Amino acid sequence: MSKRKKLRSDIAWSDATRIVVRGHSLVDLIGTTSLGEFAFLELTGRLPTPEESTVFDAIVVVLVEHGLTPSAISARLTYLGSPEALQAAVAAGLLGIGDRFGGPAEEVARMLQDAMTGGGETGDMAPRIVAEKRAAGRPVPGLGHPIHRPVDPRTARLFEIAAANGFSGRYVSLMNAVSEEATRAFGRALPVNATGAIGAIASELGFEWRVCRGLAVIARAIGLVAHLLEEDREPLATEIWSRVDEEATEHMRLEATDDRD
Amino acid sequence: MSKRKKLRSDIAWSDATRIVVRGHSLVDLIGTTSLGEFAFLELTGRLPTPEESTVFDAIVVVLVEHGLTPSAISARLTYLGSPEALQAAVAAGLLGIGDRFGGPAEEVARMLQDAMTGGGETGDMAPRIVAEKRAAGRPVPGLGHPIHRPVDPRTARLFEIAAANGFSGRYVSLMNAVSEEATRAFGRALPVNATGAIGAIASELGFEWRVCRGLAVIARAIGLVAHLLEEDREPLATEIWSRVDEEATEHMRLEATDDRD
Amino acid sequence: MSKRKKLRSDIAWSDATRIVVRGHSLVDLIGTTSLGEFAFLELTGRLPTPEESTVFDAIVVVLVEHGLTPSAISARLTYLGSPEALQAAVAAGLLGIGDRFGGPAEEVARMLQDAMTGGGETGDMAPRIVAEKRAAGRPVPGLGHPIHRPVDPRTARLFEIAAANGFSGRYVSLMNAVSEEATRAFGRALPVNATGAIGAIASELGFEWRVCRGLAVIARAIGLVAHLLEEDREPLATEIWSRVDEEATEHMRLEATDDRD
Amino acid sequence: MSKRKKLRSDIAWSDATRIVVRGHSLVDLIGTTSLGEFAFLELTGRLPTPEESTVFDAIVVVLVEHGLTPSAISARLTYLGSPEALQAAVAAGLLGIGDRFGGPAEEVARMLQDAMTGGGETGDMAPRIVAEKRAAGRPVPGLGHPIHRPVDPRTARLFEIAAANGFSGRYVSLMNAVSEEATRAFGRALPVNATGAIGAIASELGFEWRVCRGLAVIARAIGLVAHLLEEDREPLATEIWSRVDEEATEHMRLEATDDRD
Repeated sequence: MSKRKKLRSDIAWSDATRIVVRGHSLVDLIGTTSLGEFAFLELTGRLPTPEESTVFDAIVVVLVEHGLTPSAISARLTYLGSPEALQAAVAAGLLGIGDRFGGPAEEVARMLQDAMTGGGETGDMAPRIVAEKRAAGRPVPGLGHPIHRPVDPRTARLFEIAAANGFSGRYVSLMNAVSEEATRAFGRALPVNATGAIGAIASELGFEWRVCRGLAVIARAIGLVAHLLEEDREPLATEIWSRVDEEATEHMRLEATDDRD
Repeated sequence: MSKRKKLRSDIAWSDATRIVVRGHSLVDLIGTTSLGEFAFLELTGRLPTPEESTVFDAIVVVLVEHGLTPSAISARLTYLGSPEALQAAVAAGLLGIGDRFGGPAEEVARMLQDAMTGGGETGDMAPRIVAEKRAAGRPVPGLGHPIHRPVDPRTARLFEIAAANGFSGRYVSLMNAVSEEATRAFGRALPVNATGAIGAIASELGFEWRVCRGLAVIARAIGLVAHLLEEDREPLATEIWSRVDEEATEHMRLEATDDRD
Repeated sequence: MSKRKKLRSDIAWSDATRIVVRGHSLVDLIGTTSLGEFAFLELTGRLPTPEESTVFDAIVVVLVEHGLTPSAISARLTYLGSPEALQAAVAAGLLGIGDRFGGPAEEVARMLQDAMTGGGETGDMAPRIVAEKRAAGRPVPGLGHPIHRPVDPRTARLFEIAAANGFSGRYVSLMNAVSEEATRAFGRALPVNATGAIGAIASELGFEWRVCRGLAVIARAIGLVAHLLEEDREPLATEIWSRVDEEATEHMRLEATDDRD
Repeated sequence: MSKRKKLRSDIAWSDATRIVVRGHSLVDLIGTTSLGEFAFLELTGRLPTPEESTVFDAIVVVLVEHGLTPSAISARLTYLGSPEALQAAVAAGLLGIGDRFGGPAEEVARMLQDAMTGGGETGDMAPRIVAEKRAAGRPVPGLGHPIHRPVDPRTARLFEIAAANGFSGRYVSLMNAVSEEATRAFGRALPVNATGAIGAIASELGFEWRVCRGLAVIARAIGLVAHLLEEDREPLATEIWSRVDEEATEHMRLEATDDRD
């Protein structure tokens, strides 16, 4: 390998006696640093303040468990076929945390951060965002919910925790303004949902929008392991398989029988 | 789908106004429960005591970041090809947390738990474990380390945290006894490494051995997102690709040139 | 990167004007080499004879499509969440082609190849194989089928194609002998199934047992793309999700309602 | 699971004695249908003509093997960590066949198909395509190549095979017209590359643009298995790991040493 560009990473290194992560001795962090604090350190390069830690944990906790999602079912089905590789079943589940399930918080954060970067009067941002989405025929991300109606019960709590810890600033304000503007423009209640709150609060914490999909992936990995441990004791996969296969191919079976007559 | 076996999961459910995870209202957990506590709840069905929480975080934190591992490099290379899907790059990285990198803590926990389940005098367990591994020509898992020598600096700290929180019981004792016995039997220093400590402490926490690979997967998902965020700013993938391809195929290129002469 | 071991690969190289795969100019292969022949070249380093090509295609074709398997359902569920990344949905499906679904042909080939390598009288091999599996309380791979009864319709056809092309030798004989011995030893009909035929025929073709799981993965990638194209037109994922979630969590919803009374 | 929408798939079904794929008895296809023909059947629902089969195999063959790509290196690194799960290593490799490596042929096919669907004079399409890409500041897909210069040696051969089999129609013409127009507009040679040829020829075969990413995934699965079999005999992964880790973290090691002075 002829060297052209020097390879460089600033995350971690170790030798015989030392293990250093983001400039901290790992041994010093063991027992003094919570999992959430360590995650914050990994993602940002510095340990969080207690307030940041509380708010960070709050938004990630909300993303861990959403019941028997396509992602959880996919992980369970994969585990049936590859019981030797739990990591593969988790990975299969994470592969479904994309544009539809992991993307919306990212999309919210990007929308808010782009608006702030774009500059202009704060009061103009929400109308502009809503107008652009309407013109493009696309929904405004982070608003409304198919199940949690009239309001998403997580939103108020998330905003409360953020405010109590000093992270209810311009991004949270803008998200709420977008909700009000969209409600007016579309003529129906469009309250901020959990995804909208998370996108806004992650922006308050200084996370680049790109991080939001990563937070969903990190959180969901926890939930998927829990689903696989349950699948081990109380399996669903074989039953889902046989039901789906039987129902979906029934018409071909019937036609084949008719042909025989 | 004709129903044969009732599908049943006890993890979470929600309706218009409620979201319940493991019997707890999610809204009540937001802001009061740390990420580690929530993970413990997901995996075990109950919230941890403060002591359990400290010990749980300690062992998971150790698993988050191991530098530019094959897993981290693989995630970065995948991100180069599929920048639209960060989740796929994380998944690619997790796929390498198998028998070789995610398996050893699992193997330690299984070894210790099987010995305890097998019964007999505690004093006989370590010699039996070591004798069986020797007879099978296999190394005893959880001992020694290729880089961290003479001792793994994480081990003493992990055992210290476990002891300070009341989780230094028979599994930790057995792991230490296995180390002493192996050192004697193989005639060279074989101290407990971080993996050995984690397998023993996870057993103290009551985790089934199978959970250990899951803990590695959960932890590494965090580390992989951090690597991908760095890759976005300071890319390594293209350089690795071109160096590897150039060096590995050089002999064929040279032969082809010779053939032309 | 200080060089320690020279990196070397013998598969392919290219420069401005040439692309060489396994020693052949790719341009010369385009239009003259079938997909199966090219796959054979990739896997073995040489182009197949017409007979090898026919037999290779026969065994791979059988592995492409098995209906709405856990793998196909998992791919469809993943596509729902990550429509931006078809490759991720295929990968999720392939992750389930492990010990249970991709492993058996591998296990058959390994069993037969180990027996041949082990040496001894050919007539003793089948009884020894069956006796070892019985003693270990494990089924003999490649025999019987839960659905295709009394016989797997693919087996006779696969063995016929193999024989017609000169690939019905000692591995096929041994597989048949194992079937007869197992039928006698277990006291019930245990005919060779498609997996048993594939493992034996792959061994006749000179493939190391490890290749068999790879053949399953290659074949299934084709089937998974077909399922995803159908999912795009005739989606199943959302319906499976809502049915599974509703049924599996119904008991918790009912209990919660009871608690309110 | 309360039924709301009937699940339906038209791909395959089986019972005790029959296995039917796309309306054909699988047993009848074994030994008479090549792998490429079977893939065409899976993807389109019907068997190809001999001409379609030749052209289909030609474009897929080109996608199988591209040397030590990020995808192949990622698969090899994954296999090091999870030797128990070859399927996971292949999946890790496929996860990198996204927007950058699997997307371009898809993008070409979409560009050509959208232009045709959009209607208007054929002569206007190429200028409009090029003008739109220029206005958006984006390159025209399917043109030029960083390594294969001045021309991609695969293109002429692919177009020749397509023409000889009756598949050089309006999409191939349009692709060539786009190349000419782009060459004029950008003022430098922009010949059709292999990706451009594949996107055009896939369109001639009647494949929806979405299929192209799937063809890349199918083809690459073959190549990845070949790389993993080579990795088993001639490993690269450990060496790549240690070189990358050492070089990329060297600066932190040096700083830590300086701090000690």
